[in-house]
Amino acid sequence: MKPDLFLQLDRVIHEKGRLAIMSSLAATPDLSFTELRDTLGMTDGNLTTHLRILQEEGFIAVAKSYQNRRPLTTCSLTAAGRKAFAEYITLLEQIVQQNKLP
Amino acid sequence: MKPDLFLQLDRVIHEKGRLAIMSSLAATPDLSFTELRDTLGMTDGNLTTHLRILQEEGFIAVAKSYQNRRPLTTCSLTAAGRKAFAEYITLLEQIVQQNKLP
Repeated sequence: MKPDLFLQLDRVIHEKGRLAIMSSLAATPDLSFTELRDTLGMTDGNLTTHLRILQEEGFIAVAKSYQNRRPLTTCSLTAAGRKAFAEYITLLEQIVQQNKLP
Repeated sequence: MKPDLFLQLDRVIHEKGRLAIMSSLAATPDLSFTELRDTLGMTDGNLTTHLRILQEEGFIAVAKSYQNRRPLTTCSLTAAGRKAFAEYITLLEQIVQQNKLP
């Protein structure tokens, strides 16, 4: 057992909701607030809170614009977010390898 | 992206400290409180809190006895804990597969 593996897991990404958001954004250039909310089945409030935390951490960029005169919020991973997420997934992989049944 | 993968992650096990405890106990028949604390570098209070939550969830059994006239607390996974941990690791593996860079 290597306990340091667990300690290294990024706390901001490890939370289930934010892990789902990071995973969604890693798979695509960007997603609108509405797309994320509907894909992940989150409430507006919950998603807003998670996005703010990810933005404060520098992991995502949030852009506001207009589409058909309606406000559009678009989210994407930053380079730092992509790097942190890749590191997180690498750690998860090591944890899985360490704990898989033979 | 399958958002349900993330929703299925057991909240009790997903917390980093408890994940480390479950992983340690999965690798061995049992561990004393002291062994767990020292291996994981946790405080007494922190470990006690995590163990209580895991015990309430039915994931671990905590036995109290005496060794050389000193109290000895021993922790082990229950069958339910072993099953839940195996399911958790299987989900992690799917998340890793889904997010690994090509």
